[in-house]
Amino acid sequence: MKVPGLYDIREAHKRIKPFIHITPVMSSRQISNIFGCELFFKCENFQKVGAFKFRGATNAVQLLTPDEKRRGVVTHSSGNHAAALALAASDAGVKAMVVMPSNAPEVKKNAVRGYGAEITFCEPTQAARESTTRDIIARTGALLIHPYDNFNVICGQGTAALELLEEVPSLDCIMAPVGGGGLLSGTLTAARAVNPKIKVFGAEPLNANDAFLSFTSGVIHPAKPPSTIADGLLTSLSELTFTIIRKNADDILTVTEESIIECMKLIWERMKIIIEPSSAVALAAVREHNELFRGLKTGIILSGGNVELSKLPFTRAS
Amino acid sequence: MKVPGLYDIREAHKRIKPFIHITPVMSSRQISNIFGCELFFKCENFQKVGAFKFRGATNAVQLLTPDEKRRGVVTHSSGNHAAALALAASDAGVKAMVVMPSNAPEVKKNAVRGYGAEITFCEPTQAARESTTRDIIARTGALLIHPYDNFNVICGQGTAALELLEEVPSLDCIMAPVGGGGLLSGTLTAARAVNPKIKVFGAEPLNANDAFLSFTSGVIHPAKPPSTIADGLLTSLSELTFTIIRKNADDILTVTEESIIECMKLIWERMKIIIEPSSAVALAAVREHNELFRGLKTGIILSGGNVELSKLPFTRAS
Repeated sequence: MKVPGLYDIREAHKRIKPFIHITPVMSSRQISNIFGCELFFKCENFQKVGAFKFRGATNAVQLLTPDEKRRGVVTHSSGNHAAALALAASDAGVKAMVVMPSNAPEVKKNAVRGYGAEITFCEPTQAARESTTRDIIARTGALLIHPYDNFNVICGQGTAALELLEEVPSLDCIMAPVGGGGLLSGTLTAARAVNPKIKVFGAEPLNANDAFLSFTSGVIHPAKPPSTIADGLLTSLSELTFTIIRKNADDILTVTEESIIECMKLIWERMKIIIEPSSAVALAAVREHNELFRGLKTGIILSGGNVELSKLPFTRAS
Repeated sequence: MKVPGLYDIREAHKRIKPFIHITPVMSSRQISNIFGCELFFKCENFQKVGAFKFRGATNAVQLLTPDEKRRGVVTHSSGNHAAALALAASDAGVKAMVVMPSNAPEVKKNAVRGYGAEITFCEPTQAARESTTRDIIARTGALLIHPYDNFNVICGQGTAALELLEEVPSLDCIMAPVGGGGLLSGTLTAARAVNPKIKVFGAEPLNANDAFLSFTSGVIHPAKPPSTIADGLLTSLSELTFTIIRKNADDILTVTEESIIECMKLIWERMKIIIEPSSAVALAAVREHNELFRGLKTGIILSGGNVELSKLPFTRAS
């Protein structure tokens, strides 16, 4: 199995630079004080389409051959990857087809449509999504761009850590949330190569701890049905991401739902930026596993900022 | 009546620079496209205490004489100025006393207390606030730092426009929300002196249009009881701010509540930053008076980002 190296991520960075935002690194003295460490937040919530996913999708689309470009790209996703692929394809003049469950939120359908992709609706089951995607591929010859089980996508996701380490080279550790593992795989590859001594953690909801179970047991555990507010982290690892993470990660740290909401609120209130629950998972790990981070310079990748404002978890004053 | 000039604002900027954040100027291609103009947002929601008010309060506190410093400062406010004065005083080792209505939200009491100020509670009436403040002054000799009817405070508020024009010198117009008029007065003074051709507008909720009425009639109209979501813009102009605004502003533009909420949502969703309703008033003016701005480079001062997350106006998906 071919796994990415630092060279691949640097090449990806050159390739996607004309298309992405170089996102800011922010810090908050108040939040650093609360957790007794120096925190640096890489703000991928400010990335185009509101999530780091645009990096990987752009790298994958820019690497298409002329023939692949003519046939188009396809994915099945109701989340940030669908919007990211739609915009990345649009930037390259390539047709994007997205398979979405018919019950996906209107706001997500509109985002994907707004970037010019063609949506095919299917029943809201994994089987229906996969078979509908296969039908499209059979009919059009389109190339499937998987959200994380894809070498080029992982290289693109790794560019966020590359930028973070360029801006703050003295980091002691770095942390990314883990769902399918694309962001964590890219982060591990970039960070370990730039600084072999840096510690790299994945952060995961306890209620969706399949990466933790896979990491500790050595075999891939499938994701259970969703029961976390961190709706970007419901997917299982793939062979590729599992291989990279199992070999390189220092640990996968799990966190409670209460911690996720508390840390999301902390970032909204103190930093005045909007992050989605999945982004708060890494800060929640600093909160719940504080002994690992005290006194250390810690980089956190805020993965995205797409939330439904009418469905926020802040129901009571505190 | 002594009114500030550009020199005063430049001096204020040198004075407060060690204490404030130099806030970023952000833009959003999507929002600019929606309104057909090029928008530049000066992000005072990222200022310390979450609002531009920290600039004016810091300038006023840093200019205290040794004797005034010993006696302390006092203000009556339940909003951003109270927190700003508390932190500015703490930075200078000066005691701050804040008179707050007993029914002020816990979150605001905690913020002011957290910055080390002493709170005196009073009945929630204007008369009680003023008499309690007078009592404190009589007892302690503390200096009243008014939120906007204060030369030094206005000079501090003008530094936000100064920074914005340093970063984007080619602006055709600039806009600030108007409540008591401190921010708009400082903005007018800075912008007009740096570029005499620039247009400067104030933006105000139609439901609190006392500045508009004062500006057009030539006499100060008192603010009516609050009926706007923009809770930072409920106060009346003072003689000083009225004089500056009446002489220099191009116009005061009023906006509906619906526009304020719509534009607040737009900034949250597209820019992933948290602004308070008062900050959205200026973008709402671009929306409702669009003919004035089409094709122009327009600077907007986002005044602050302090909202109660449990009381947001986004009750329905759209």
